[in-house]
Amino acid sequence: MLVVMQSQATERQIAQVLEAVRRLNLTPHPMPGATRTAIGITGNVGAVDPRSLEVLPGVLELIRVTKPFKLASREMHAEDTVVKFGKTSIGPGTFTIIAGPCSVENEDMILQTAEFLRKHGVHLLRAGAFKPRSSPYSYQGMGIEGLEILERVRKKTGIGIVTELMDTENADAVEEVADVIQIGTRNMQNFSLLRRVSRATKPVLLKRGMAATLEEWLMAAEYVMAGGNYRVILCERGVRTFSDHSRNTLDLSVIPPVKQLSHLPVLVDPSHGTGKRAYVPPMALASMAAGADGLLIEMHPDPDRALSDGAQSLEFGQFENLLEALRRLAEPLGKLIN
Amino acid sequence: MLVVMQSQATERQIAQVLEAVRRLNLTPHPMPGATRTAIGITGNVGAVDPRSLEVLPGVLELIRVTKPFKLASREMHAEDTVVKFGKTSIGPGTFTIIAGPCSVENEDMILQTAEFLRKHGVHLLRAGAFKPRSSPYSYQGMGIEGLEILERVRKKTGIGIVTELMDTENADAVEEVADVIQIGTRNMQNFSLLRRVSRATKPVLLKRGMAATLEEWLMAAEYVMAGGNYRVILCERGVRTFSDHSRNTLDLSVIPPVKQLSHLPVLVDPSHGTGKRAYVPPMALASMAAGADGLLIEMHPDPDRALSDGAQSLEFGQFENLLEALRRLAEPLGKLIN
Amino acid sequence: MLVVMQSQATERQIAQVLEAVRRLNLTPHPMPGATRTAIGITGNVGAVDPRSLEVLPGVLELIRVTKPFKLASREMHAEDTVVKFGKTSIGPGTFTIIAGPCSVENEDMILQTAEFLRKHGVHLLRAGAFKPRSSPYSYQGMGIEGLEILERVRKKTGIGIVTELMDTENADAVEEVADVIQIGTRNMQNFSLLRRVSRATKPVLLKRGMAATLEEWLMAAEYVMAGGNYRVILCERGVRTFSDHSRNTLDLSVIPPVKQLSHLPVLVDPSHGTGKRAYVPPMALASMAAGADGLLIEMHPDPDRALSDGAQSLEFGQFENLLEALRRLAEPLGKLIN
Amino acid sequence: MLVVMQSQATERQIAQVLEAVRRLNLTPHPMPGATRTAIGITGNVGAVDPRSLEVLPGVLELIRVTKPFKLASREMHAEDTVVKFGKTSIGPGTFTIIAGPCSVENEDMILQTAEFLRKHGVHLLRAGAFKPRSSPYSYQGMGIEGLEILERVRKKTGIGIVTELMDTENADAVEEVADVIQIGTRNMQNFSLLRRVSRATKPVLLKRGMAATLEEWLMAAEYVMAGGNYRVILCERGVRTFSDHSRNTLDLSVIPPVKQLSHLPVLVDPSHGTGKRAYVPPMALASMAAGADGLLIEMHPDPDRALSDGAQSLEFGQFENLLEALRRLAEPLGKLIN
Repeated sequence: MLVVMQSQATERQIAQVLEAVRRLNLTPHPMPGATRTAIGITGNVGAVDPRSLEVLPGVLELIRVTKPFKLASREMHAEDTVVKFGKTSIGPGTFTIIAGPCSVENEDMILQTAEFLRKHGVHLLRAGAFKPRSSPYSYQGMGIEGLEILERVRKKTGIGIVTELMDTENADAVEEVADVIQIGTRNMQNFSLLRRVSRATKPVLLKRGMAATLEEWLMAAEYVMAGGNYRVILCERGVRTFSDHSRNTLDLSVIPPVKQLSHLPVLVDPSHGTGKRAYVPPMALASMAAGADGLLIEMHPDPDRALSDGAQSLEFGQFENLLEALRRLAEPLGKLIN
Repeated sequence: MLVVMQSQATERQIAQVLEAVRRLNLTPHPMPGATRTAIGITGNVGAVDPRSLEVLPGVLELIRVTKPFKLASREMHAEDTVVKFGKTSIGPGTFTIIAGPCSVENEDMILQTAEFLRKHGVHLLRAGAFKPRSSPYSYQGMGIEGLEILERVRKKTGIGIVTELMDTENADAVEEVADVIQIGTRNMQNFSLLRRVSRATKPVLLKRGMAATLEEWLMAAEYVMAGGNYRVILCERGVRTFSDHSRNTLDLSVIPPVKQLSHLPVLVDPSHGTGKRAYVPPMALASMAAGADGLLIEMHPDPDRALSDGAQSLEFGQFENLLEALRRLAEPLGKLIN
Repeated sequence: MLVVMQSQATERQIAQVLEAVRRLNLTPHPMPGATRTAIGITGNVGAVDPRSLEVLPGVLELIRVTKPFKLASREMHAEDTVVKFGKTSIGPGTFTIIAGPCSVENEDMILQTAEFLRKHGVHLLRAGAFKPRSSPYSYQGMGIEGLEILERVRKKTGIGIVTELMDTENADAVEEVADVIQIGTRNMQNFSLLRRVSRATKPVLLKRGMAATLEEWLMAAEYVMAGGNYRVILCERGVRTFSDHSRNTLDLSVIPPVKQLSHLPVLVDPSHGTGKRAYVPPMALASMAAGADGLLIEMHPDPDRALSDGAQSLEFGQFENLLEALRRLAEPLGKLIN
Repeated sequence: MLVVMQSQATERQIAQVLEAVRRLNLTPHPMPGATRTAIGITGNVGAVDPRSLEVLPGVLELIRVTKPFKLASREMHAEDTVVKFGKTSIGPGTFTIIAGPCSVENEDMILQTAEFLRKHGVHLLRAGAFKPRSSPYSYQGMGIEGLEILERVRKKTGIGIVTELMDTENADAVEEVADVIQIGTRNMQNFSLLRRVSRATKPVLLKRGMAATLEEWLMAAEYVMAGGNYRVILCERGVRTFSDHSRNTLDLSVIPPVKQLSHLPVLVDPSHGTGKRAYVPPMALASMAAGADGLLIEMHPDPDRALSDGAQSLEFGQFENLLEALRRLAEPLGKLIN
């Protein structure tokens, strides 16, 4: 941490800051410069609200230096984390495809999708039994019945299940069925929910909040890891900007910094990120090229009749084409499709 | 809803769209223009995912016309809602101050703050027993013990309590103590929580999400109202932008449109909105002038030693000065401080 | 400036950074901490591209400490600047109203507006002869002929003229007619234009860029001041955000930080900031309460027939009402309407 | 255009709107619905300020339907534009690399870079003689002397020159030397400059403004095309968002919509888009995969000693590696590196 004094700060004001730093059990390092004094601070600064120093007289600004995340940080854990479950490994070297409809609508369509995916070498199906919808009047998902469908299709086809958990009430039920528990963008900072899945026995797919900085996203991962669940998979899904040409702005530029600051794997969801079927394939290819470890793709046997998010879902044929294009790109990029 | 066809759309493509609209039990109104055809759609469009039409061949764009909120909408309810409880009325005509520390730290400081507020004619105290913190290593609040403190101080001083509910597990406990249940910015789209407080017997203070559009904010209010709780108080608390001169960008410009589109009262939280004590008084005055119905203000007996958010909390003396400035402004603005 | 080393940085890497700092004629101050070393840097850091140190091996991050603006900075010039011309003073203590139509459409309407303003004690008229329009097919203003109209009305009524300069070609012509030269939001970083008006004999009204940080805005002011023109008036006019309820997001929360970091006066343009007539009065009052030094208001004798920006222009009667409301607020806020 | 009436709008108010539409020489199409009336408008709506209807009594909202760009629009020009000059073709099928230092620092480094590029099959060099810098105290480029260096190196090596024009004063000089005239992000809406280059004999590379919507960007291209210069190349270079992990947020997700709405070629500048050398290669590969037609890359013989933007410039060796990686990706993506 670094305290920057105003250029006209008095000796007395500087002394007050040094004293305040020491009261916090930290060590101040004054650095007088040509126009002003700066005061470096060392010690265990993580627990301190830096802004309490910022309001002292003569202080211009307080700059936090150390990142607050520990378990999610590459500095603490230099090697890439590979999240393993069943026969799946998510992380560098592989490129994992998770695909399926927005929501579980009935058993037929889930079974049909699962068999199609298995046939094409895709091992993980996504589908929501609980749907977070901005309107109370929109379709809210099948709930527990949807989970039962997923469970039956899982048994029948051997496909792995990725499904969203929206609240602690349904945590046991989702944990039982899911191979990976998805935490949605609106719940990235639902700390009670994060604490619950930090005790889960299944990996957690943590979507980035719509306006979450990289630091906040990694701090949400830290909540899960701090509770003992180290199997966290990050997922970029578009952020809010002034830009109005698509539903969200898919932030592929976050991938290189994620990889630099953290050891966790990161997927991309170009379906929510773009909101429009035609934009999904180019952004899926771009995600792989940018260094993502996989994709979350919405597809549907009959997207124009889907109960939710049909416009961003691929038809089966379009998905096949995308898969083929991804395979062609995988080799020059040194990835193995999973 | 309006479907805009591409200028080179064929007759056949137009016919397909008309057919698709009818299949949705809606009525299409084709309007051929000089360069293209547009198709107006009437009927119960609320339940339809508009984007399913957008992907049909020949369609350029689909434009949603009707706002999806009903109960929260001024069109459905022309008069201003005044939320009443105890002797308090929140809504036009009055200007309600809710003040207090970020978190309940101990009984003394809550009692001291409550007595100070009562002495100055402020009837509502805010303080969190449960604290949503971006880091799992930060102070998380006193929990149930904090609620008990609030309960005792409430009885002792008669002050009303505004406190945050973070999850359904603690809903009964918070509902019992609180005069107003606060839903925080990170939970604005925690739909399970919204459904729970839609059945609560206490009014709900609904903070705007950090990147929520006005429509999403009103739809979150709609969740609460659709469940039967009509006493919703909106609260603007700053949004995420590129702008880095303060913690958030306090969006006072949302107040006139809120008042135009909705009948619900709206407060402003300039403490979180700015993150810096010195910026709170000017933004508090500006909130009143912009048409807000009240304020949520952080204050602390000793802010520089606060366990959370000290830098944005006013000292008692600063709060007194602000209150006086607000009183001077209330009369020319036709408000009565509450 | 502060270089933060990675926790696993080697002694050799630290030595390399110290050496690189010295090569830049700066002084390094190493501060070894518990988990990592930070290196404070003093000397004339303004001219250095800090990112050249950031890419050295072992460096985690480089943090710039000193603000790059000098002449615009309150640290260098503690007292508030009051910009004076004719009988007008813009700055703390007064509250200056500048009003008029978006563009000069003909002499009648300018004369009519000027007389109306003078009658109501407003001494500055705004109107554009050159209009920056996003479409090449939109009305682009009367050009030189518009300037001539402004000149004649100025002589006839004695009103002061605020008008926009879009390019260096027309700088002499605008400088001759204008009492204040306006630089529009799209030209805030048109550095050739800033350099030209830095040599002008008239004050400059510098609108904030649509996505300009406070620092960039003050740096644009610095361009004008560095060339010798110290009479700079800042003007907030709304920024770009995800928020879609109005044309722009009027950022009143920038006013307190502007006042803290700079000594320059700051006005607000609620007409462009909101884009909608009905939202202008509340945001105008809020601007005054937030600490602005005045307003730029669009008004028009017949706004529904205006050639540009009619929807955000007030009618004369609405302007009178606003003026009255501002006067009522001025006294409790300690301002004198100008 | 579509006018949406309030649900309680009277017959009289609807009639007034119909009348106002007719007065604008447009045709109204009333569509009475279950809860409200909407009024479709056909005719030449491009020239109308839609907001003048929005303020009529009983109007809820006005929705613009037709896009305002014509010449830049794919609707008007279905085939992809390929911009040709010398032996270069920029557009689908090829993938054009433009590389070089941020600024011309001396003749040696430009010559060295040009020879290196030619050796590696890259035919276009970028380097600025005029540099737009946010600080008046930063290095501003060599100016005319820099152009002369570019001219000499062009003659000596045969390399094509891409260089920025900042103002109309230097337009003739830049036009003479440049093979492609670059318009920087800060000048995307400098309409006087756009009008000047609309008369230029050289193609224009138009960078997207930092907060420009896709529509505004295409309207800026429309300015250039409306003046007669049809050879416009778009260039995405990162936009402003709340996200703070890199200098800007490189918006690759804009590429598919650009290709859908316009026929113009689009490049990406990952150097400015990320601001950090290590992030450039993954984002360059992602740009190609997303469908861009080429790249603008900063590279420097000795980036750590560069006078500007060194931290985002690649070393020669890094550039070679990137080029090789791009070549491996080009074939499966059906591109030919140019």
